[in-house]
Amino acid sequence: MALRTLSAKSAAALDKDLMSVGGFSLDQLMELAGLSVSQAVYRVHPPSKGENILVACGPGNNGGDGLVAARHLWHYGYKPTVFYPKQSNNELYQRLATQLRNLEVPFTDDFDGTMKETNHIVDAIFGFSFSGEVREPFATVISAMEKTEIPVTAVDAPSSWSIEDGPPKLGPGSTFHPAALISLTAPKPLVKHFKGRHFVGGRFITPEIASKYNLDVPSYTGVDQVLEIDADGQKL
Amino acid sequence: MALRTLSAKSAAALDKDLMSVGGFSLDQLMELAGLSVSQAVYRVHPPSKGENILVACGPGNNGGDGLVAARHLWHYGYKPTVFYPKQSNNELYQRLATQLRNLEVPFTDDFDGTMKETNHIVDAIFGFSFSGEVREPFATVISAMEKTEIPVTAVDAPSSWSIEDGPPKLGPGSTFHPAALISLTAPKPLVKHFKGRHFVGGRFITPEIASKYNLDVPSYTGVDQVLEIDADGQKL
Repeated sequence: MALRTLSAKSAAALDKDLMSVGGFSLDQLMELAGLSVSQAVYRVHPPSKGENILVACGPGNNGGDGLVAARHLWHYGYKPTVFYPKQSNNELYQRLATQLRNLEVPFTDDFDGTMKETNHIVDAIFGFSFSGEVREPFATVISAMEKTEIPVTAVDAPSSWSIEDGPPKLGPGSTFHPAALISLTAPKPLVKHFKGRHFVGGRFITPEIASKYNLDVPSYTGVDQVLEIDADGQKL
Repeated sequence: MALRTLSAKSAAALDKDLMSVGGFSLDQLMELAGLSVSQAVYRVHPPSKGENILVACGPGNNGGDGLVAARHLWHYGYKPTVFYPKQSNNELYQRLATQLRNLEVPFTDDFDGTMKETNHIVDAIFGFSFSGEVREPFATVISAMEKTEIPVTAVDAPSSWSIEDGPPKLGPGSTFHPAALISLTAPKPLVKHFKGRHFVGGRFITPEIASKYNLDVPSYTGVDQVLEIDADGQKL
């Protein structure tokens, strides 16, 4: 049985539903999404494998998920560093950054330099709303993640990948294959091109929404906020 | 070493700090608090012991934590029923109730009748801002929780207890001893009168805030959002 996926257009509509009839605020959804990301990172790269985590955050919601994840990672005992070059003026993102500064989590402008001392990278640059061309400074960062041996966990999508079609044919990201991916809410069509460890997270989908968007509600275990699945969508 | 506790007055000041200089929204804090509550319930009463959970919600923040917990409990596979007789007009609480209705979680006005069919009760009626007298319909509900053999997990405080001095000398709650308590952010002084299983939750305290309020940051394990502790505040 093939894994049911959610197109970029449907993912945007689903988010709108969650925040209108669903009654969720973006604060709440981002908190739960970022928490799921942090739990996936903990599974892929527990602190015993090295505490230094570089979290690369883009300008939108994917970056916000990264900011939340970085905070939870700090609480788990990691030493996260955040690369967040295009900071949003949005009040929520500013508060998420404040929460990190209050934990003395460093923000860096030097992705390459920090990468040399990191044990794991979180790619929270672009999510399901990405399309088109990658601009600087992210093109350089994606190239660096593409070339490094340091394992990467991507949030919702490997950055630069087309949500529907996977890796770009040319340019930054064309050979970017992160070690792990966490799909938030539901996997996007790009997962058929993805070969690493695959998690789903975002434990807030109602049966009604799953039915409307023709999705599976993952069979999470206990209180877990993430579930690792195989290429057929089966629990691992 | 005695457990360091947080007075009602300090707990209110700490919450204000979290939502001003801390950069947190109430949505975020309540989501994390309610998630902690749901994880404590899962430890005390896993679904294998019976899926029916009656969540009693008061009119304020303690009730809001209960609403969030009920949603997570639903996602863990429980069948929660919510008793929420004094519903707040506050937009956040209304959205939390909507989130439950979208999961078809039933709301009941009949605490006693529902209690007969429940396996576990969550007492989210009053928290650290409680003082004075218990009014109806909560007086009757607290008396019912006091008399029943069904185990209760209390959120932040057994309802009716004085935050500083513990059980009231007379009236509803004077012999109310819940099976479990989850202290959010930090234990309140009442814990010295509490004999059941004790958890701490709310994994969002910064070292700076812990230092300002003379608190211990609990030594949570892994990605856990709760920690069970003994009377000396040591990890169990």
